[in-house]
Order: sequence, then C-alpha cells, then structure tokens
Amino acid sequence: MKLYERYADEIADLIRQQVLRPGERLPSVRQARSQRGISPSTIFEAYCLLEARGLIHCRPRSGYYVNATKTPRTPEPTTAAPANQSTPVAVSELVFEVLGSTRNQQLVPLGSAFASPQLFPLDKLARALTPAMRQLPPEQLTEQLTLGDEALRRQIALRYSVGGTRVEPGELVITNGAMEALNLCLQVTTQPGDVVVVESPAFYAALQALERLQLRAVEVATHPRTGVDVDSLARVLQQHPVKACWLMPNFQNPLGSLMPVENKQALVQLLAQHQVPLIEDDVYGELYFGLHRPPPAKAFDTQGLVLHCSSFSKSLAPGYRVGWVAAGRYAEAVQRAKLMTSLSTAIPSQQAIASYLHTGGFDRHLRQMRLRLEDNASVALRAIAKHFPKGTKVTRPQGGYFLWVELPATVDALALHQRALAQGISVAPGHLFSADRRFAHHLRLNYGHHDADALRAALQKLGQLCSA
Amino acid sequence: MKLYERYADEIADLIRQQVLRPGERLPSVRQARSQRGISPSTIFEAYCLLEARGLIHCRPRSGYYVNATKTPRTPEPTTAAPANQSTPVAVSELVFEVLGSTRNQQLVPLGSAFASPQLFPLDKLARALTPAMRQLPPEQLTEQLTLGDEALRRQIALRYSVGGTRVEPGELVITNGAMEALNLCLQVTTQPGDVVVVESPAFYAALQALERLQLRAVEVATHPRTGVDVDSLARVLQQHPVKACWLMPNFQNPLGSLMPVENKQALVQLLAQHQVPLIEDDVYGELYFGLHRPPPAKAFDTQGLVLHCSSFSKSLAPGYRVGWVAAGRYAEAVQRAKLMTSLSTAIPSQQAIASYLHTGGFDRHLRQMRLRLEDNASVALRAIAKHFPKGTKVTRPQGGYFLWVELPATVDALALHQRALAQGISVAPGHLFSADRRFAHHLRLNYGHHDADALRAALQKLGQLCSA
Repeated sequence: MKLYERYADEIADLIRQQVLRPGERLPSVRQARSQRGISPSTIFEAYCLLEARGLIHCRPRSGYYVNATKTPRTPEPTTAAPANQSTPVAVSELVFEVLGSTRNQQLVPLGSAFASPQLFPLDKLARALTPAMRQLPPEQLTEQLTLGDEALRRQIALRYSVGGTRVEPGELVITNGAMEALNLCLQVTTQPGDVVVVESPAFYAALQALERLQLRAVEVATHPRTGVDVDSLARVLQQHPVKACWLMPNFQNPLGSLMPVENKQALVQLLAQHQVPLIEDDVYGELYFGLHRPPPAKAFDTQGLVLHCSSFSKSLAPGYRVGWVAAGRYAEAVQRAKLMTSLSTAIPSQQAIASYLHTGGFDRHLRQMRLRLEDNASVALRAIAKHFPKGTKVTRPQGGYFLWVELPATVDALALHQRALAQGISVAPGHLFSADRRFAHHLRLNYGHHDADALRAALQKLGQLCSA
Repeated sequence: MKLYERYADEIADLIRQQVLRPGERLPSVRQARSQRGISPSTIFEAYCLLEARGLIHCRPRSGYYVNATKTPRTPEPTTAAPANQSTPVAVSELVFEVLGSTRNQQLVPLGSAFASPQLFPLDKLARALTPAMRQLPPEQLTEQLTLGDEALRRQIALRYSVGGTRVEPGELVITNGAMEALNLCLQVTTQPGDVVVVESPAFYAALQALERLQLRAVEVATHPRTGVDVDSLARVLQQHPVKACWLMPNFQNPLGSLMPVENKQALVQLLAQHQVPLIEDDVYGELYFGLHRPPPAKAFDTQGLVLHCSSFSKSLAPGYRVGWVAAGRYAEAVQRAKLMTSLSTAIPSQQAIASYLHTGGFDRHLRQMRLRLEDNASVALRAIAKHFPKGTKVTRPQGGYFLWVELPATVDALALHQRALAQGISVAPGHLFSADRRFAHHLRLNYGHHDADALRAALQKLGQLCSA
C-alpha cells in the first residue's frame, strides 16, 4: 500500500469513528506536514482519494471538509434475547426450500450468501493454475495429502503471525472450504445429543450442521453491533451441559456484528473456565472496514481450546473450495477426521492460491474489495432509510457484506420472500436463522454486488413491497 | 483405438482366458483375413504389438505362437469365511499408525493406496486448468454449486450410458473424491448403531468410516477371484438387521476380485428383496485387464437401491479430488448432505477434467495404463513365485493394482511391515483389512508403479524378509 493510501485510510477511519465529524475541517497541508512529516504531494493525493470516495469536499481557498454524514437514520435492531433452552434443530427443509428457489441467475441476489464473483481477481487465479500444477513434482499429488500443501500452510501461518495470532504450522489442516472445517470441528468435539451454543440469530448452515449431527442448540443473546453477549453466555454455560460453541466474533452472519477485543478476551476466558471449545467461524474477518484486521478470538487463546476456521472463498477465490482450520489441541483429531471424511483437499486449488499469495497482490485486492463493500453498505443503508417502511430497523455492519433488517412486525418475511421472487429479487428470510424460526419479520440482505445502481434499485423495489 | 490395437486386444483376451493356450498357433494371415475381413497389414501390426507385449512369438516360416504361460504357480488364497457376527469397529488407530509410518518418499511404496502419479497424464490436465477457468462465466462459481459442473455430469452420464448403465444426470452429485461420496452415502442410509455389511477382507477406509459414524460391521465371506459370496450374504441378511452394504464388486481392495455378471445380478436382486441399499465402491472399474469394462452392480438396479460411487482419482487425476455418486432414490438426500458437509467440490478441478474429457484422450490414456498395470501384475506375480517362501498364496487380479498375499501362518505381517520399512519398502499389513484384525499373516501389495525393475527388486527383497 502506498503512503497516500495509508494516510487516506487513517483519515477515513477518523471519519468513520466520528472523531472527525461532518462539516469539520481536515488538517491543512502545513499542519499535516509539520505533525506527521508527510510531503504536501502525498497529502494532496490522499485528500483527492477521499474526495473521490465521497467522504470529504474542497472549499476553494479554505480547505477540505468532512461531508455531511451519509449514515441514515434508520435505528438499529434491538438485542436478540432467545429463550434459554436447548432444542433439537429442524430447519434444513426450510433452508433447502428457500435456497432452491433463489438459484435463478436472473434474480438480484440480495438473498445470496456469496458476494458477486466479479469482485474477485478470477483471471489472475486462473492464470496461476497451470504453471502451479506444472511445477509440482508428481509425487506431491499423493504425499502430505491430508494436512494440505505445505507452502500454502506456511502462507496462512504467516498471515496469522502478521495479525499477531500465534498458530503452529502443524496445527493447520486445509479443508474443502470453511464449511468442511466447521463440520469437522463439530464432529471432533461432540457426540449425537450434545448441546452446542450458537448465536441468535445464527448462520443457517450452523443450524443445519447441528441438525445433521443430531445435536441440540442453545441460542445465545447478541447485540446487533457487538455480537455475542458474554454475560448471557455465562448464564447458558452454568445451566446447560454445553460441549462446544460455534460463534462468529468477526462480522457475524447475518448481523455483521463485531465483538470488541475486550469481549473476545472475556469470551475466551469464560470458555477456558468451563473447558468448552470454541469453534470460531472467521470467514469474513478479512473484509473489515476499519484500518486493521480485527483479531480473532483465537488470538487470545492460551489453552488450544479455540478451533479457528476460515477460508479463501469469501475473500479471494470463490469456487476454489480452499478453507482451513487451526484446531489447537484438537488438531490431530481434525486431521484424522479429514482423512476419513474426504482424504484431502483439491491440489490444483491449493497450488494456485499458494502461488497467488506468494506473488503478492492479495492485500491490494482486499483493499479494493473492502472499499467497494463499504461503499455498497452506505448505498444500501441510504436506500433502506429512504424506501423501507417506518419502523424498519437495520444493523450498521463494520465489515462483511450482510445487513440484518428488522421490518415492522406486520410483515411476514416468508411471504415477502415470495413476492420479491416474483419481482426478480431474492432475500434471505429471518426464519432461516433460528432453530425456533423466531425472526419472522427479519431479512438478511447481501450488499456484496458489483453494480451499486442495481443494488439501489432492488432495495427501492423491495422497500415498496414491504410497504405494500 | 485403432483397428490393429483392437484386434490385438481380442487375441490377448483369448490368451488371458486360456482359449488360446501356451504353444498354440495363432490364426494365419490368410485365416484371419478370410474369417474377419481384416487386411494383412493390420494383422501384422496386431501380432507385432502382441510380440512386443511378450504374449506371442514368431517361428520363421511357421507362424505366431502363444508364449509359455507367465502365470506363476503360487496358489490362490482360500475363501475368507468371517465369523457371522456384528462388531463395533476400532481400527483407526492402527491404520493411522501404519499409514503415518509409510509417508516417506524414499520408500518403495508397496503399501500405498495410490498408483504412481507418473502413470497419469498430469501435464495435459495441468494445461487444461487455466483455459477452462478463464472460459467459465464468473457467475458459475456460485451457481449449481452442490450438484457439480453440468458439463462434467453430462460427460460422466455419457460414460455410464456407453457402458450400458442407465443413470439420470439429475441423480449425480460431484464429490470431493470417492471418499466423500462413500461417506455421504453411509450418512444418508444409516444411523449410529446400525449394522453395515462389508467384505472380508475390507478396504480399511470403509472400516474407518463405520467407526467414525459409530456403525457396526458384519463382514461377509469372499472368494479371492469372484469376490462377495452371495449365499453367505443371504444368510447374513436373514440374521442381522442390515441397513446398508458397502461393497466393491469390481477389483475389490485389497483382493482385486471381480464379481461375475451373474453374481452381481444375484446380489442386486437379493438386496432388493431385503430393501437394503448397496453402496457400491467402483473406483477401480476402469482399470480392467479384459476387453470390456465390467458393468457395475448399478447396471442391474431397477429400484434405485444402488448408490454407485466412483472417481477420477485412480484412473485419471490423482489429487484433483473429483469423485461422484449416482445415488438412485437417495440422490436428493445425498445432495443435501453434500451441501451441509462441504457445500461443493472445487471448480478448477471439475472444469479441467470436463475439458480433458471433452477433448478426448481419456480412453487412450486408460488403455496405456491398463497395459502397464497388467504387465506389472505379471512382473509381481513372477517375483512372488520366485522369491516368497513356500506356502505363500496370492490372488490373480483381473484389474486394479493390488495383490493380496497370504503368507505362511508363522509370519506376522505387522512385524514384517517394520522390517520392510527398515529396508526402504512399505507394505500394507493384513491387520488393517478387518474389524477383528484377522488377517495377521496377509499383505496388500501395490504393483501400480512406473518402474517395473524397482518393483521386481523390492519384491525380491520382501520375499527374503518373509523367509528370514
């Protein structure tokens, strides 16, 4: 990243955190130079970039000023407070029904779990495939199968260490996407009938995994901005024989919430007291809007109790199916489960990604993708503020590409889903995100699109459907 | 395949079946021309090829004669007759221990489950990767994920139909290798505690899968050449509440046995009577030594009770992790299990294989690979006849790349495994192939190597270790 980009990011972050408020003046060139030792041309380039991003504007012979806030006035949803009880899970049928109906390519995919493939460096990855496989000694195709490619594991371990998280290379297993990683983690930490904690609302695939493995779910309260409520979790742990927690501290699906560092520390400490493993789903961790990658809960784990799962599917290479888990004290168990479940992960995908990471360009791609997603989030929030009915509430995501919308209680999300489909728009109805189908007037909306105008238009239409 | 190759294959098959016996004269050019309408030059080319393969020799001014048999005189093992009881499975620890010790690349891998990567068209596959992915419309990366690539499924369905097996394209799910397919099939047909039939001896991964899913195994008797004994299976089905069978009718691992067509028909009929699903592991089906691909049991299934699993890992593309299942009446359940377990199979691997199949060359590659493997089988059988101790018995594989060796009862296969490792050779001790570790003086030996001399030398050394 160039110096002017870094400086622009710093200013953007001050604006984001409201340290610099709308209408306030940015440091002058002279101030910035004397305070920070940055050259005038760098400062101009940074301000130019911020102006292009719509964050500041220039007043002739006066200076640069922060734009009027783009944050819309739609309120945030309230804290989700589920019933403190464990239940068997049976959401799969509904999930399949809803997902099955949204597979039409002509739809505006607000209900999709994927960002637009056009946001990814697909051509560069494709070009890496053939050379990477031609350079591979043939015997590597049947060696080190289960753990995964060594070069790739080193690259992943390096990214952890740059982020301040200590992960042993031997602790990593490359998996067929994060989905396999998460499933393997559940398998090695539970037996059928066991109780597992998930968030309320929870990612429906977590609920499906519990259902498939005949586990019972306890849903724990979340705050729409800070995620899991650690006090509520403490009560759950006292009252239920919890065998594992499946949580998303960073940019939870569907809330987009981000647990503050101190909450993550408290979470890890609490689980250590109870000796309960944390299956940490961190697939959106690289898609942060702030200046720095938020640490995973794994960063605070001293006992090997956190099984940290992530993947390249959301950040780099959709469809390549390369995920991983750093499974702490469960590493060997996960390796064995992987060997028995699917033997190994596709080698062309691993080689191409290792080669792409080695060449560089991942961070540049991520930077562009984050800016795009943050812009899209503003577009979506403004469209919702303008077009959705009175009483609508919506989250303020700090990363990822989901909004969680609480509609007036009179709106049935499943009925809305059907009406929206007829209008060429998919949505993810809230029913999918809880074992007891509690979120009946909620939606998860995906703003990870390549065309902001189409996104805006679809949200306008959806707002009209909600109001109708 | 060219005409002379086809004619040579026919003659080779007559020799293999002992219709043409050692010392007998082949049809003269005149006979062949008048009987078959084949041109003299084609006949000469075919005989030349057979001479090069060591099957016939020329006597000047007399004609071509079948060579003295290369079939060694080592007897075949006896029928395996397991105790007719269901047992929980606990072999994983041993399997991991043994496999873990054989991962050294310097070993001659007689214990490996993989053929030498050098027997595969790796460069052509690698070259297919980049163009295939660059041609893929980006939206395909997030569409039709779970079933797998449509073009690939069409190619697979086509191969079934050429072989006379009817498979609906919608019945196919592309999986992360056959291992995932087999595991998904077990998941959708059983519950923990259920009884599943496997062969005796069984592929250890089948035993591990049963162990992982907390299933009970009943092992069924097999004949070393014709595989599963259907009468024994009938008795097992009467006496145990069997929920599924996991069997390998074609080139069973480790026996290399091939069920005759009538046995397969009887098997499918028997299971239909009991309404028990057959999970058919057919990963070696393309590696036959005869003239035609043996049909899978699936070919005789009229009730959708056969879940036919296969892959490209053993026949074309090791490490690409592309397998599939044609799951009959269980297709939808398997699709859902796949979605919940690992979402989808790596797209670069699927695209490259679809492109390779479309371009052609798969059958030519298979033909070469089969000849190589059949030659290697002869080399291995001769070396065993010459160097292994008296009392050794060995199977006569008709496809695949495994020999099953029964050593004199005084030899302990696990101790031999350790001694062989010290000499730079891996073996797969018989203990791995049964829930009750019955095959204590048996070995599975892999002859799928690229260097016949190394194979011969390793078997000589191993024979000396057995005798010592």
